[in-house]
Amino acid sequence: MSAAFVTILGSNSAVPAFNRHPTSQVLELGGELILIDCGEATQIQMQKFQIKRNRINHIFISHLHGDHYFGLIGLITSYGLMGRTTDLHIYSPNGLAQLIQLHLQLGGVVLPYALHFIVIEQEGLIFENNKIKVHCFPTIHRIACFAFKFEEKRNPRKIDVAQCIANDIPAAYYRYLQLGNDYETKQGKIIKNETVTIAADAPKTYAYGADTIYNEAMIPFVSNVDLLYHETTFLKDLAERAAARYHSTTVEAATIALKANVKKLVIGHFSSKYKDLAQFKLEAAAVFENVELAIEGTCINI
Amino acid sequence: MSAAFVTILGSNSAVPAFNRHPTSQVLELGGELILIDCGEATQIQMQKFQIKRNRINHIFISHLHGDHYFGLIGLITSYGLMGRTTDLHIYSPNGLAQLIQLHLQLGGVVLPYALHFIVIEQEGLIFENNKIKVHCFPTIHRIACFAFKFEEKRNPRKIDVAQCIANDIPAAYYRYLQLGNDYETKQGKIIKNETVTIAADAPKTYAYGADTIYNEAMIPFVSNVDLLYHETTFLKDLAERAAARYHSTTVEAATIALKANVKKLVIGHFSSKYKDLAQFKLEAAAVFENVELAIEGTCINI
Repeated sequence: MSAAFVTILGSNSAVPAFNRHPTSQVLELGGELILIDCGEATQIQMQKFQIKRNRINHIFISHLHGDHYFGLIGLITSYGLMGRTTDLHIYSPNGLAQLIQLHLQLGGVVLPYALHFIVIEQEGLIFENNKIKVHCFPTIHRIACFAFKFEEKRNPRKIDVAQCIANDIPAAYYRYLQLGNDYETKQGKIIKNETVTIAADAPKTYAYGADTIYNEAMIPFVSNVDLLYHETTFLKDLAERAAARYHSTTVEAATIALKANVKKLVIGHFSSKYKDLAQFKLEAAAVFENVELAIEGTCINI
Repeated sequence: MSAAFVTILGSNSAVPAFNRHPTSQVLELGGELILIDCGEATQIQMQKFQIKRNRINHIFISHLHGDHYFGLIGLITSYGLMGRTTDLHIYSPNGLAQLIQLHLQLGGVVLPYALHFIVIEQEGLIFENNKIKVHCFPTIHRIACFAFKFEEKRNPRKIDVAQCIANDIPAAYYRYLQLGNDYETKQGKIIKNETVTIAADAPKTYAYGADTIYNEAMIPFVSNVDLLYHETTFLKDLAERAAARYHSTTVEAATIALKANVKKLVIGHFSSKYKDLAQFKLEAAAVFENVELAIEGTCINI
């Protein structure tokens, strides 16, 4: 079982404040290192928190408000200056390719690696390899914006070698057993899979709620995930302001977590009006107990 | 006499490293607060070093390599989010207006203040008000790049009130005296200006050398300034690499300072290959003694 955790690089909304940076997270899942949103100074935060950024091959940008992507061009050009040759894939709503190309053109920059822009337009599967798959879901925000769900693929069952030998099963069949199949001996005896294999750990799931107004339509999308990140730009007393700006409050985020039956909730995207964040945790925990603040530099296990 | 100093917000070249940020400086001169270059995270550095950014109405961008302007869009949008209404003027080589407009358009951002882009194309005066004037000079770099010279205007002479009264000069003539004129009494007697006024402090000058290869053609432009910032991307042993990349070394920067007879030199734009910067100062000081490193957060008097 590979490690599964999220490292918070930035958790502030709109304007940086109180030494809090705009939104960015790094997800370790299924052996992949994935960047989710990339606010200004993300590359500097990566250095500070010792992220192995060369392992990142896929970047998911929820929407094109600056506090979620202004750090992208700096990261892209730094990769070039550091001699990256591996392809880089960037998933976002439409417009980013033109912008990044214009930046590169103005600076006379020729990257030594290939950039691939994947435009997200509607709910669905946007990435899949042999380790993970990623789905997106449109949130309700001021501009096109998408939540992401990252799912580890089901791990193969583990071989109980002692039991296989005791049952005379040739090693050539192990791969077949890992997929959950029973084994039939030459004598026609069925050896049930669960007697010669061990269940792998359950695959982990992480949902990144992006910027959104309180929206129960998102519940099925994030249902039962191990960890849900949901924005909480405001405390509960500013629910009206949150709605007017297409953002959410503590209680709203926690309500989504509760109704979606997630295992754990992490909240962030704090408004610059708040210096102290303790009240965010208190208000959310009153609705959904297993909640953590998205504090920069913290790693949250999935 | 108003204060005159430069605050260093960032001094690293290309890629941020060792907690050093890309280039940005804030200049206090003639009562104006001016931003020179705006690398990524400049707005965050402004918060850290308590720069009164609302006093900035003029931003000078030397060239469109990312380490000199990637922080601009974040600053521009933050000004908007914080309710700025004062016009903002941005001086740079061509291309920035189109890029910033594309950023704003993608984010659906309507600024509550007016942005003015002034395209710099050749040597000359690019800004002047009643306090300062700014000239630019094309450096030799990989793309269009300009050095800037910021000059306080000559301050008016100070009135020696006691002497004016002793000479029966009406107060209505003080303004005339401040400009350096003599006074003629009704009896036709000439009262020399210097007997009734006091010389003001000399106006201060700051030259920002931007990115450049060693270029003696710049010497007349920066001649005799109070403070010269000159890039020193590399130590002297890498003069060939510096030239190949259109950058300068410690010795080259100091040689320009010496030949231009400037009062003081500040060096920066250090390559990410150097963790320790002590050798930069040693090498430059061997050629031009009055030199200081552009360390983030330091204020350098002019």
